[in-house]
Amino acid sequence: MLNSEFLNQLKKIAGASHVQDSKADRLAYSYDATPNFQHMPDVIVSPRTAEDIQHIVRLCASYQVPIVPRGSGTNLCAGTCPTQGGLVMLFTRMNQFIEIDEENLTATVQPGLITQELIREVEARGLFYPPDPSSMKISTLGGNINENSGGLRGLKYGVTRDYVLGLEVVLPNGDIIKTGGKLAKDVAGYDMTRLFVGSEGTLGIVTEATLKLLPLPETKQTMLCLYESLEEAAASVSAIIAERIIPATLEFMDQPTLEVVEDFAKIGLPTDVQAVLLIEQDGNPEAVSRDMQNIAKVCQQHGAKEVNIAHSEEEASALLTARRAALSALARLSPTTILEDATVPRSEIANMVRAIEDIAREYEVKICTFGHAGDGNLHPTCATDARNEEEMKRVEEAFQAIFEKAVSLGGTITGEHGVGLMKAPYLELKVKKEGIAAMKAIKQALDPANIMNPDKVFGKAARKRVVIS
Amino acid sequence: MLNSEFLNQLKKIAGASHVQDSKADRLAYSYDATPNFQHMPDVIVSPRTAEDIQHIVRLCASYQVPIVPRGSGTNLCAGTCPTQGGLVMLFTRMNQFIEIDEENLTATVQPGLITQELIREVEARGLFYPPDPSSMKISTLGGNINENSGGLRGLKYGVTRDYVLGLEVVLPNGDIIKTGGKLAKDVAGYDMTRLFVGSEGTLGIVTEATLKLLPLPETKQTMLCLYESLEEAAASVSAIIAERIIPATLEFMDQPTLEVVEDFAKIGLPTDVQAVLLIEQDGNPEAVSRDMQNIAKVCQQHGAKEVNIAHSEEEASALLTARRAALSALARLSPTTILEDATVPRSEIANMVRAIEDIAREYEVKICTFGHAGDGNLHPTCATDARNEEEMKRVEEAFQAIFEKAVSLGGTITGEHGVGLMKAPYLELKVKKEGIAAMKAIKQALDPANIMNPDKVFGKAARKRVVIS
Repeated sequence: MLNSEFLNQLKKIAGASHVQDSKADRLAYSYDATPNFQHMPDVIVSPRTAEDIQHIVRLCASYQVPIVPRGSGTNLCAGTCPTQGGLVMLFTRMNQFIEIDEENLTATVQPGLITQELIREVEARGLFYPPDPSSMKISTLGGNINENSGGLRGLKYGVTRDYVLGLEVVLPNGDIIKTGGKLAKDVAGYDMTRLFVGSEGTLGIVTEATLKLLPLPETKQTMLCLYESLEEAAASVSAIIAERIIPATLEFMDQPTLEVVEDFAKIGLPTDVQAVLLIEQDGNPEAVSRDMQNIAKVCQQHGAKEVNIAHSEEEASALLTARRAALSALARLSPTTILEDATVPRSEIANMVRAIEDIAREYEVKICTFGHAGDGNLHPTCATDARNEEEMKRVEEAFQAIFEKAVSLGGTITGEHGVGLMKAPYLELKVKKEGIAAMKAIKQALDPANIMNPDKVFGKAARKRVVIS
Repeated sequence: MLNSEFLNQLKKIAGASHVQDSKADRLAYSYDATPNFQHMPDVIVSPRTAEDIQHIVRLCASYQVPIVPRGSGTNLCAGTCPTQGGLVMLFTRMNQFIEIDEENLTATVQPGLITQELIREVEARGLFYPPDPSSMKISTLGGNINENSGGLRGLKYGVTRDYVLGLEVVLPNGDIIKTGGKLAKDVAGYDMTRLFVGSEGTLGIVTEATLKLLPLPETKQTMLCLYESLEEAAASVSAIIAERIIPATLEFMDQPTLEVVEDFAKIGLPTDVQAVLLIEQDGNPEAVSRDMQNIAKVCQQHGAKEVNIAHSEEEASALLTARRAALSALARLSPTTILEDATVPRSEIANMVRAIEDIAREYEVKICTFGHAGDGNLHPTCATDARNEEEMKRVEEAFQAIFEKAVSLGGTITGEHGVGLMKAPYLELKVKKEGIAAMKAIKQALDPANIMNPDKVFGKAARKRVVIS
């Protein structure tokens, strides 16, 4: 429980109506999109300015109250679960465009702005903000920055990190710093911008971001390739890149995923094939049409049973929307849906998909797999029931086996979801104890009192997913 | 002076023939490409493996001997000047390709590999490594990574940072860590890869790097646009981008630069115009030819007196080679050539070029300006004489005024050369004291004994360029 003096000061800073501490409010922010992680915060605050945040951070520091910054809570790593109680900070009052600069091709935004609002606004001006996490309809840019979110266009265009040019950040000591700027190049000291991108709210609070925009590609085309085997689909992925073609999107869905996605979206997806590749290319019309022809040829050579190019923008958009809905569709299968994020070098996709199938069989759990094949970023997704403790133990073991396999193939435990609380026990698999020690030294240097989103990235204990009764 | 026990142990680690401490050797490594910074190291060592380096780092830690890692010493920020003596570490025995992986589009290299050797090797395979610092014929990839080097293709393709996927690093405590990998996406913990890129050897020693490659663009075209005024050239830069065209290269040279470059390269550059833009576009043939036509139109609309498209690859290559030789050409003008690196948002190029001219007049110094106009990255270059103390004082003041102006226009003190020793006194202009404090906290966390390239990035004192007698 927070003492009343703290609460009074908090209300003075943010305004009493922007401080919530009823049980219902606290319950609403006790969990995020990650199943089975929950802890009650003590208070929720919605500041309006960086200066408000500066005062709140200093107040929290003096009372040793943890701060959990939270966008829309769509993360899948329990990154915004307030494990030590304390304060959840919302950005609903800091959700504005500050500027779109068409001459320098930048957008400056507040952290609470919804990703899709930015995308819609810049596309209306013939500009392009590529990072498109599946949650983009509700996720915030501040959340995307803190998680270094990926999306469907990562193969050609990279991830959020590649579009953050500058940040304003309130540090754990209350200092406000500005990093980078509207600059194509800046090497004035350490790359603090990229250190904060993906730091999951553990090093400071992003209060403003300057993002890089591109010209909107002139045109795009989408195709769906159907396969009777996972291996042929995976081989096609490598073969497309080996042809020196980098599609904008190169997505993979296995048969079980297809079935539930079709059942959910009803757009006529094939459910009688073993796998599909959903491929999009963008650019100028000649290049797009030539790339699509070459991709079709490569896929056919590698065993695609059918190659269908979308005939209209609506059809293409329906395909991509269906793919984005995979999590929602899979969530209907069972009481608990755990979507994971193992990533391997592109050349290892076939091995990884096969390993996931073997592991699912070994641990007797149901796992569908889809993901960003071009990035080697797979989302094995388990339909389970958190109330079944025995099954959950097998699920946990299966995922550990998946992460170990990914790392053994030169991959990583998370491609785009972040470590958060959920993957903290597995971080050492990827970065070894020396890597964790170096990261912890940085955390300790910037947040010696450990008030910024504690337990995330490197938890105190090797606590794994737990069943909350 | 180092004690003999230290030297004996060093020889045991690296082999006696790879440890040099004669006066001639020490003199050779007492300076780098930056004029007027010099300090004698105590010893020079050339290790062969990461393990050698681990042992050397631990030895240096126990004897409190500073370590200055050095590629080819082509940096322009006195980043490899051994200001506190100690050990200069060379990578001449760690200069090999480890692997080019055509399936994952990566190259894994040792830090001592020459940039151009990588570029030549991957281009022969139809692949592309875009970062192309002007020094690429002699610079090393380890140096490029430590300085986050830019180049002529930064506008469209970004800088070294954007191509580093993974690193092996020996930390100041002797730990060896591996960051990232052959992965398009990896968010397992803090972005240590980008923290080390551009950290100027102050946080650890890079012993291996995995770099991202792209398919080689099918074709490219080059054009030269001539202007009677700087303003028209600058306005053309903004107008090209406003047309939603991102050229691969968009370089600017003013009249004095043209004159010396032509005198040096003798390729028929115009010397009777006020400025030129050197523009290259790459991609598929249709897009390149359409972009070139549109760029030509935009430049003519904005006052270009003449627009000449190179008729052959030889002609295009001669133009780019001449531009890359600008520093060498300018270096012939006077005993001392100081090439600077102020960077502004692209929209401020005209203002910045005009400010540089005003400042040169005010301080009565000769400054030529050229640079990467598309990136807002200008290289005002001063022809002076280090032996003339009075003039050097004016040069120093003029550059301070240039940095202040760049920052006031939303720019930075260095776009691609790094801070090193030379710009440490100016870093606060850009990142403020709070930003320096945060960077210093990271340095202190990873290198508490301050043995890794001390005095760089944030020097102990506000020491400016000094005249060495």
